[in-house]
Amino acid sequence: MSGPIEQGAGRRAVVLLSGGLDSATTLAATVRSGWVCHALSFDYGQRHGVELQAAQRLAEKLGAREHRVLRLDLSVFGGSALTDPSIAVPETPAEGIPVTYVPARNTVFLSMALAWAETLGARDIFIGANAVDYSGYPDCRPDYLAAFEAMANLATAAGVAGERIRIRAPLVDLSKAAIVRLALECGVDPSATVSCYQADEQGSACGVCDSCRLRARGFVEAGVPDSTRYR
Amino acid sequence: MSGPIEQGAGRRAVVLLSGGLDSATTLAATVRSGWVCHALSFDYGQRHGVELQAAQRLAEKLGAREHRVLRLDLSVFGGSALTDPSIAVPETPAEGIPVTYVPARNTVFLSMALAWAETLGARDIFIGANAVDYSGYPDCRPDYLAAFEAMANLATAAGVAGERIRIRAPLVDLSKAAIVRLALECGVDPSATVSCYQADEQGSACGVCDSCRLRARGFVEAGVPDSTRYR
Repeated sequence: MSGPIEQGAGRRAVVLLSGGLDSATTLAATVRSGWVCHALSFDYGQRHGVELQAAQRLAEKLGAREHRVLRLDLSVFGGSALTDPSIAVPETPAEGIPVTYVPARNTVFLSMALAWAETLGARDIFIGANAVDYSGYPDCRPDYLAAFEAMANLATAAGVAGERIRIRAPLVDLSKAAIVRLALECGVDPSATVSCYQADEQGSACGVCDSCRLRARGFVEAGVPDSTRYR
Repeated sequence: MSGPIEQGAGRRAVVLLSGGLDSATTLAATVRSGWVCHALSFDYGQRHGVELQAAQRLAEKLGAREHRVLRLDLSVFGGSALTDPSIAVPETPAEGIPVTYVPARNTVFLSMALAWAETLGARDIFIGANAVDYSGYPDCRPDYLAAFEAMANLATAAGVAGERIRIRAPLVDLSKAAIVRLALECGVDPSATVSCYQADEQGSACGVCDSCRLRARGFVEAGVPDSTRYR
């Protein structure tokens, strides 16, 4: 599931693209490996809507074949600081699963990616999940991703026909520093990506949320100047 | 996963409700077993939108605590006779997976149910999937449902905390005749449900699509008059 990306040789893939550094790096590395990439983003009632504008620009710049934004109002379920304006985004790290966790988010996103993959005739879905320098969300871990893949192969016409569906998370085992290096190697401009949980309307980062802290530490550890725009 | 429904004893459950006979029966049987039911329907670009009106009425009549309809435009992905107006609904049964299959539909629906369950603090999700008298969709089979459940327990904060998430499909092993009998036993009025893939605006059934055929045979085999409104 991780490690170097298998050559695509012109095969189609669906790539989840949030507009953050990890998914942008995943898209760039996947395009570079010869996959024809269909990028998928979600307008899910997130606070940081500016990341969708970043996703749109990144899809074009990094060579996605097409980019679709699916509107999906997860905020009607409430329950996360990322979609519920009444819950504050914390500025200090917490124990356990943080309030920025969006219920079942990667499951919902991967399910929609699976639906699109099936209609495209694609069997490969790329996601920028990372389980090293991450916020502790359960749905970023390798055993979760493997379980989703097993389910997907029982869920779909392609899977039933023996055409193996694969959930590929090429960044899952990488440190944030390694992701920063890979991003630069693949031509991703980090300043064009938005990772902050509470970016402002210009996409400038707060510098204090969990996502900002992890990202900033990645630049330091990679020994690379941090081009992120902070406010 | 199947068999008699465990007593809910006031526990919350999310119940997928399409407006068809199977999901209405699932809801009625779940309410009867003492669960507090939160019914969830999807407006997913389906041809047979009249089923959503039926779902609304059924949720109220059968005693759901609340009913939410989530808009989700799966038709942007195309690929099914149920969402793509350019693909005809077949009037004779076909071999293999039919064109009425909506890509990854149950995976998408269960994922959204999982998101809602997490915010509600519910651990049980009920679905009217059936793998006996069914159309051959891969995502109705018990091994698929078990794989989804395994994934859900790795995906969620509740699962990680050891609070087991369960996907319950009480109709999965029942014949359509047994479902018809259970529906009547639980107070479901079959004429208030819409199973037809191409029901008209009044909810009247075509009588010839796969779903109508399976349902009509259920009434015959149950020895019960078919109260379905045909056009």
